Amino acid sequence: MSAAACIFCKIIKGEIPSMKIFESEKTLAFLDIGPLSKGHSLVIPKHHGAKLHDIPDDQLAEVLSVTKKIAIAQNLQDYNILQNNGRIAHQIVDHVHFHLIPKPNAEEGLGVGWPTKEADKGELQKLLEDIKSKM
Amino acid sequence: MSAAACIFCKIIKGEIPSMKIFESEKTLAFLDIGPLSKGHSLVIPKHHGAKLHDIPDDQLAEVLSVTKKIAIAQNLQDYNILQNNGRIAHQIVDHVHFHLIPKPNAEEGLGVGWPTKEADKGELQKLLEDIKSKM
Repeated sequence: MSAAACIFCKIIKGEIPSMKIFESEKTLAFLDIGPLSKGHSLVIPKHHGAKLHDIPDDQLAEVLSVTKKIAIAQNLQDYNILQNNGRIAHQIVDHVHFHLIPKPNAEEGLGVGWPTKEADKGELQKLLEDIKSKM
Repeated sequence: MSAAACIFCKIIKGEIPSMKIFESEKTLAFLDIGPLSKGHSLVIPKHHGAKLHDIPDDQLAEVLSVTKKIAIAQNLQDYNILQNNGRIAHQIVDHVHFHLIPKPNAEEGLGVGWPTKEADKGELQKLLEDIKSKM
């Protein structure tokens, strides 16, 4: 999707209203209007890019400190930070966004499924060498 | 938990081995040995703190660019970034850690539960004012 058609770019430009919590040169934060729990917020780099690997480092540097500030402002103790890449990974809007999702109880907030598998140490070691060679 | 008893602090100090992908002054990344999918990695600030709001901003600044680097090294297209705070939010180790979890198919990787509720616009507006007043 182009930046021109992107709903989050329209929010950044003020063409669509939002419940804005914080704004700086590089970063915007606003309430999610379809929250999983009270205080569910979105923090986005203003730079348009669909996935994390599309965003320049300097546009990412502030994201976590802003997210932290919003958690502290709500005095949150239990919460998840989630950023999804790709439809299969539950991404709906193709502009990188970080969810801050309070977890007040078992029913509300993010549901986390954790299908751990047994890992083969030899295969992990090979994978490690492969990743390191590409860093 | 104190830093002395923290398993991730022991990994940072080299007292426990890890499958280290990347290390800098402030940040460490290593393979998760109980992966949800091939390439499941952890990125941690070296600063000991249980929850995101415990970590100084400057110790967080590099986390996302390192995470991005690992996604690119694996040529990932579909993946989730997740950071859990509190037992109820699925945090097991009390040292802030960011999961990079590849999502190769519906069965492997992170399971995302999304129990959206209808939000009252008036209540959202009140909440917004409250959060903003504390930022």
